Amino acid sequence: MSDTSVLEGLIQALRRLPGVGVKSASRMAYHLLQHDREGAELISQALHQAASQVQHCERCHTFTTQTVCDTCLDDGRDTTRLCVVETPADQSAVERTAAYKGLYFVLMGRISPLDGFGPKDIGLEKLMARASDGMVKEVILATNFTAEGEATAHVLSEGLKKRGVQVTRLARGVPVGSELEYVDLGTIAHALVDRRDA
Amino acid sequence: MSDTSVLEGLIQALRRLPGVGVKSASRMAYHLLQHDREGAELISQALHQAASQVQHCERCHTFTTQTVCDTCLDDGRDTTRLCVVETPADQSAVERTAAYKGLYFVLMGRISPLDGFGPKDIGLEKLMARASDGMVKEVILATNFTAEGEATAHVLSEGLKKRGVQVTRLARGVPVGSELEYVDLGTIAHALVDRRDA
Repeated sequence: MSDTSVLEGLIQALRRLPGVGVKSASRMAYHLLQHDREGAELISQALHQAASQVQHCERCHTFTTQTVCDTCLDDGRDTTRLCVVETPADQSAVERTAAYKGLYFVLMGRISPLDGFGPKDIGLEKLMARASDGMVKEVILATNFTAEGEATAHVLSEGLKKRGVQVTRLARGVPVGSELEYVDLGTIAHALVDRRDA
Repeated sequence: MSDTSVLEGLIQALRRLPGVGVKSASRMAYHLLQHDREGAELISQALHQAASQVQHCERCHTFTTQTVCDTCLDDGRDTTRLCVVETPADQSAVERTAAYKGLYFVLMGRISPLDGFGPKDIGLEKLMARASDGMVKEVILATNFTAEGEATAHVLSEGLKKRGVQVTRLARGVPVGSELEYVDLGTIAHALVDRRDA
């Protein structure tokens, strides 16, 4: 292996991180090698461990190292309510409000025809089956208030209503055009309380 | 190990990358796990390989997997000239100009008392020994034109001149392709002082 290929290989590998170009990747590589070798090994191990152990929860589709995640296994939760979010980060934002005690379904994406993401990519069938289990009375659509999130909510709403489930949407207390992950918790809490019929 | 600790551990590990906070780290972790597991394994391996194999070149102090780097081993180079740069990225920039055929010394930093980086941290003694090997006739200081880079150049210049080596600094002036109207005044002032025969 030639002299520079290990360093070059590291820079190329780091470019696969979202939002990281060749300049940032070089900066990261030099920083880790010069000042934080321990950090480099730590990230290496964490990535390997996560990539080999993390899978999707059978019930809610979120990231977990188990077959069913801790949230779905939690006895203290209201099993009649299902909150549909786009990502685990969104789920985490809703959780931190402490204003919701039901269960979740994590789409792991959104319907976005321009990017080639259709109903299949967000596990639409899986959600329909989950919502029709006889326990779920209400599905709260908490997809982002972006064009794609709204379209996703619309598609899900149509499908769920046909199955006789009550469908609600987070109240428009959340500023239009923003993403849940970045909204302050008070706003999300208000939007949960003021949720409306879809 | 609890359900979320693997994912949480990955996010915490990614925060050790320079310029990456908790939001960026989450975004990176979710992206890799959802869309690019192969990339996650690739980065993991590249980091481990680099952290365990990359060391400093005995002669020029840059990153290499060998005892002496390819550049220093290159027979075709002018061994009477030594270009001093702050980082391997700077070295790479000089190399890409194809206007320099001498050797390098990479400081791997700069003198910056506010950040706690003194002469020892940039291998001052090593550079002095390297420049006094009897082969080197001229040392070209190519540290950055920032306050820290200029201070570093000054300290190096003092030490090298005492040892009877010719010391030069990259020319300061108006960047190629720029219009005077938009160049900062300090640069124009320097270009005036350092004007040359046309």
